[in-house]
Amino acid sequence: MKIGIIGGSGYVGSELLRLLLMHPEVEVTMVTSRQNAGEFIFNMHPNLRGLTQLKFVPQDLSELQKNCDLIFTATPHGGSQTLVPPLLEAGLKVIDMSADFRLKNPADYETYYGWKHVQPEMLKQAVYGLPELHRDEIKSAQLIACPGCEATAAILGLAPLVRAGLVDPDKIVVDLKVGSSGGGSKPSVASHHPERSNGVRPYKVVGHRHIAEVEQELALLGGPVKVSFTPHAVNMVRGILATIHTFPKQPLTSKDLWRTLRGMYGNEPFIRLVKYLKGPYQLPDPKIVMGTNFCDVGFESDEHAGRLIMFSALDNMVKGAAGQGVQCLNILMGIDETTSLKSTGFHPI
Amino acid sequence: MKIGIIGGSGYVGSELLRLLLMHPEVEVTMVTSRQNAGEFIFNMHPNLRGLTQLKFVPQDLSELQKNCDLIFTATPHGGSQTLVPPLLEAGLKVIDMSADFRLKNPADYETYYGWKHVQPEMLKQAVYGLPELHRDEIKSAQLIACPGCEATAAILGLAPLVRAGLVDPDKIVVDLKVGSSGGGSKPSVASHHPERSNGVRPYKVVGHRHIAEVEQELALLGGPVKVSFTPHAVNMVRGILATIHTFPKQPLTSKDLWRTLRGMYGNEPFIRLVKYLKGPYQLPDPKIVMGTNFCDVGFESDEHAGRLIMFSALDNMVKGAAGQGVQCLNILMGIDETTSLKSTGFHPI
Amino acid sequence: MKIGIIGGSGYVGSELLRLLLMHPEVEVTMVTSRQNAGEFIFNMHPNLRGLTQLKFVPQDLSELQKNCDLIFTATPHGGSQTLVPPLLEAGLKVIDMSADFRLKNPADYETYYGWKHVQPEMLKQAVYGLPELHRDEIKSAQLIACPGCEATAAILGLAPLVRAGLVDPDKIVVDLKVGSSGGGSKPSVASHHPERSNGVRPYKVVGHRHIAEVEQELALLGGPVKVSFTPHAVNMVRGILATIHTFPKQPLTSKDLWRTLRGMYGNEPFIRLVKYLKGPYQLPDPKIVMGTNFCDVGFESDEHAGRLIMFSALDNMVKGAAGQGVQCLNILMGIDETTSLKSTGFHPI
Amino acid sequence: MKIGIIGGSGYVGSELLRLLLMHPEVEVTMVTSRQNAGEFIFNMHPNLRGLTQLKFVPQDLSELQKNCDLIFTATPHGGSQTLVPPLLEAGLKVIDMSADFRLKNPADYETYYGWKHVQPEMLKQAVYGLPELHRDEIKSAQLIACPGCEATAAILGLAPLVRAGLVDPDKIVVDLKVGSSGGGSKPSVASHHPERSNGVRPYKVVGHRHIAEVEQELALLGGPVKVSFTPHAVNMVRGILATIHTFPKQPLTSKDLWRTLRGMYGNEPFIRLVKYLKGPYQLPDPKIVMGTNFCDVGFESDEHAGRLIMFSALDNMVKGAAGQGVQCLNILMGIDETTSLKSTGFHPI
Repeated sequence: MKIGIIGGSGYVGSELLRLLLMHPEVEVTMVTSRQNAGEFIFNMHPNLRGLTQLKFVPQDLSELQKNCDLIFTATPHGGSQTLVPPLLEAGLKVIDMSADFRLKNPADYETYYGWKHVQPEMLKQAVYGLPELHRDEIKSAQLIACPGCEATAAILGLAPLVRAGLVDPDKIVVDLKVGSSGGGSKPSVASHHPERSNGVRPYKVVGHRHIAEVEQELALLGGPVKVSFTPHAVNMVRGILATIHTFPKQPLTSKDLWRTLRGMYGNEPFIRLVKYLKGPYQLPDPKIVMGTNFCDVGFESDEHAGRLIMFSALDNMVKGAAGQGVQCLNILMGIDETTSLKSTGFHPI
Repeated sequence: MKIGIIGGSGYVGSELLRLLLMHPEVEVTMVTSRQNAGEFIFNMHPNLRGLTQLKFVPQDLSELQKNCDLIFTATPHGGSQTLVPPLLEAGLKVIDMSADFRLKNPADYETYYGWKHVQPEMLKQAVYGLPELHRDEIKSAQLIACPGCEATAAILGLAPLVRAGLVDPDKIVVDLKVGSSGGGSKPSVASHHPERSNGVRPYKVVGHRHIAEVEQELALLGGPVKVSFTPHAVNMVRGILATIHTFPKQPLTSKDLWRTLRGMYGNEPFIRLVKYLKGPYQLPDPKIVMGTNFCDVGFESDEHAGRLIMFSALDNMVKGAAGQGVQCLNILMGIDETTSLKSTGFHPI
Repeated sequence: MKIGIIGGSGYVGSELLRLLLMHPEVEVTMVTSRQNAGEFIFNMHPNLRGLTQLKFVPQDLSELQKNCDLIFTATPHGGSQTLVPPLLEAGLKVIDMSADFRLKNPADYETYYGWKHVQPEMLKQAVYGLPELHRDEIKSAQLIACPGCEATAAILGLAPLVRAGLVDPDKIVVDLKVGSSGGGSKPSVASHHPERSNGVRPYKVVGHRHIAEVEQELALLGGPVKVSFTPHAVNMVRGILATIHTFPKQPLTSKDLWRTLRGMYGNEPFIRLVKYLKGPYQLPDPKIVMGTNFCDVGFESDEHAGRLIMFSALDNMVKGAAGQGVQCLNILMGIDETTSLKSTGFHPI
Repeated sequence: MKIGIIGGSGYVGSELLRLLLMHPEVEVTMVTSRQNAGEFIFNMHPNLRGLTQLKFVPQDLSELQKNCDLIFTATPHGGSQTLVPPLLEAGLKVIDMSADFRLKNPADYETYYGWKHVQPEMLKQAVYGLPELHRDEIKSAQLIACPGCEATAAILGLAPLVRAGLVDPDKIVVDLKVGSSGGGSKPSVASHHPERSNGVRPYKVVGHRHIAEVEQELALLGGPVKVSFTPHAVNMVRGILATIHTFPKQPLTSKDLWRTLRGMYGNEPFIRLVKYLKGPYQLPDPKIVMGTNFCDVGFESDEHAGRLIMFSALDNMVKGAAGQGVQCLNILMGIDETTSLKSTGFHPI
């Protein structure tokens, strides 16, 4: 399959390239970049030196249509909604890495993103690209909206509980710790190394955009939920840990929980249930999944306070973005879902 | 005043030395260390090179009694309970940096620390050394039990709300992000640089020892509370951020909250209320208080989820340990509470 | 003494404010910032919250002349050369933190900075503000040019050897490891947290601007020298370590070297000679001087390869910039040179 | 081929497992660990969770002989010299990750390691496992001594110059910046996170053990050399940058240098020559090769000081240890040298 990437100079583009250039069943034919057209890709992403001699090209839809079967759009939020329709009309498939087709309710774009969607009727057609929830729809989708990285961590940690109706749906507290690559490749004061290092900084504490997709997806599983969402920027480049504080409706045994988790994730190739009683890594830690498509999920019951705490850890660049996109691609192509996604992580890194 | 430090080679001892050697009203006369007796202090704590020619001495109580008016005990938990009584009997004052005299209920030591207290009757006598709650008692105390670092962050973030009865006392979620110095100076696998860097690791997710003192102190302010406590080791040396998720009993305006916070902390020299609408530092961040005795406190109301989130940030080595001890010392001595504690922090660091 | 700061929103301005607001003998009366005029200073530098209610003001020379006796110019290189002359004419003293008055040979500005100096005749008048070399001239200077941070580390590590003529002056290799704050407060790709973390990056490997001042100052001590200069960006916010590889003209004993170093630095308040035979801190490490005005200097003789390696460590924001400026100010005012510079550093940080 | 690993719980063992468990042509049959025998490997190396159900076994030579064709010995220096001979006698092949068989001159063990080698006659038989220098000997070796990580960086940076006789062989300055994983998995004060973070620390400044193998290998290429070696611990987990300051015998053009480098490394699968004129990554940076078997090599000519600076960057765990071992294994097996070593690195990480 011939693949094009629109927006290849950013971090999601970088990670898509890493995974797709090594993918045995696809060929990357075109990678666009407005600012870097004409440059070797490996100059922007020096990890790819020696792997490809491709250069960035300008964003020309007719060329893309000619040379590609499927396009990954790794463009800023708000850009895909106009870019995608002509690609679909030309018969291409699209995996959109932006937020533009994730939400079903057009009004949510106004609430959470501050703009009115220009293609509201297309939202129904798009499939939310979280294989653990939508594998069957992904198989035959023409347009896949790849989930947000923080949303992926939150949904995967909560889905089994919400589906089984085990916790109070109105009191879900998602406290996230997020690496700096999640903010993208564009420098800013907040991401300036002297400002970002050595601290823990709450941000977007109210009204975070991923709330919309988390509540949308969880509602499909177990009815309406109310999620509060508190991300923190920590001193780490890759990785998200979602610590999810929930209030069980009634006391839950460890056995019940394992059964619930295994029931949903037992056959998932990229969900690992983590519980160990010794050493530093007893629960999920994003360090352990760095560079991989895994989402590690664990839990702890706090009897003292009547709480169930879920932990989910993933690499925001892989399972939180490009890896999830490639997982969707593999499903779409009907090939082994783990193709090009077998990296196991590092200890230590 | 002549000061002795028992246990001067650890991190709390290091920080006490930094503050006390610069303190204009005291003289450090003896610093003990079992392992390093006879060595220059500055070889263990090279930041002090040029500031002192003192050497570590063995732990000899009669020498301490002879040469000191007040002792800081910076010994491991469980060690102070036998060490402190003879010092008190000899007429010395003691500021204990361990947990041994923080709790009023002897049974809590069995529950949270796993050992039976050998001096249960002395617990009543000890004053919990958090000036914001116990300033008057500190003035005339003979034995001060300095609070835990994570407990300090949690209590200072919660105290105004609990005192005013604004939030559900049974649903308090304290999610902490903690620097590595909080684990002390003894190497371990969990604190080994390759293991500790680049990750976010939940630890002591259930049954954390500081829960006991947090619930004890908050109960004094507003009746029984139930606190869940989830600390995370992050890639940072100094600092704690406590993110405290609470459920208000009824909707609270920003004005109400400011009034509540200012009512309690308006005159506190080391509490800063933080709220800013631009830039990266809109809420407390431990980076900004590094090296200082400040606890920065802020909040955000999440109307969507009906939640009030408190943030408190401090340096675990200063306001969370040695600085708080020196603050208590200053109160005890009847001098300016900020003596030797005026450091303003750094931007950036 | 009434002090003004031109360019108070950058990192050097931040650090000057930290030191000068705590300085008992001066008053900061005006702090300019083009972009932030009208804003509270503590919003830009949140560490100063509670310490000052000053706001940034626009850069108005006549107002500065009215309200100040001495100006610190913390402006970008090339800006001071036009800014300083009217201040001097108005009778103010100036401590310039930029490179504009550091070099004596106007041609060096063209070679190293790429522009022609507009006030070449003023270069003679300016005093290079390194107290260890120019203390007497600083006392009576009207214009002080504060040294560069990397230059300070290199000169202080080399000065005793060059003065004593102990090493080959044509084969001096300065290999520097530098923290990110040295690059200033303006975000860039190179300083973007995801790009700057977890690596070691050589930069300005040839033609580094500080070579000019290092060679100028060392030549004053011992005749012409040729310095090669290789800085590396490392994962650290504050600090510089200069590892200086030299080739001794003849074998040197450790005793000779100690005598040479003590001969030059024995009475210096901010130079510490470091050598310890145990533990991790046997030689200078910028971690240990973080937040202080110290420059730690040490050495090791490599008999196998016939080399003498000097190490000098400092905090680029303090001894490498603002602290050095305040040290010059203290000398100029005839007060204790260590005023407001007594911070001892932290262990650990 | 059936592979055993002796010493599988350390970091080299961890990385060998990562590479060998994914290797399509080998099977890992036994992994020993004295301390963790009986435990699942994935509990010690949680990145391997889901990849293997192997458990650590005790170190039983007869079992290893029965179940393996080739052994990787990832044991502490000094341990392999007694462990390896019986394995060789039993007809197994051995790739030794320790230093025990790297040096040809037995006296060097006394000088550099402080102990007398017990199998001095076996040193001749061992092949130094650096494929770029000894590929042909590796093909038929029975015992391969895998090079040290810092030695690999130094040799690969210097080999082309020394072979071509371009630089003064008596004035070679190797200044290294090294990540913490290089120190191994055993906690120590120097590697304690609070001590190791945020600094740059020179260590083993004189008499570093890798000098012996660097001088041995370079001498084979171009006659005797004298190398000085100055490693620095930096705030990074993986990676080494060697900055190699050399003094060319006569002026060298950039063209000459490229020709020399390409002449030696033009066909090497894991050496990349790096030079780029824009952006942050103009020269090698260990960040870019993290997780890969690449050694990136670059240079800069300093005409001002008459110096040629070589830079070589690698991941100490991969090209500096386990990856190099697997590269040797592939050569030995006569299969594609890059098998299981194709990982491209990450941008950013």
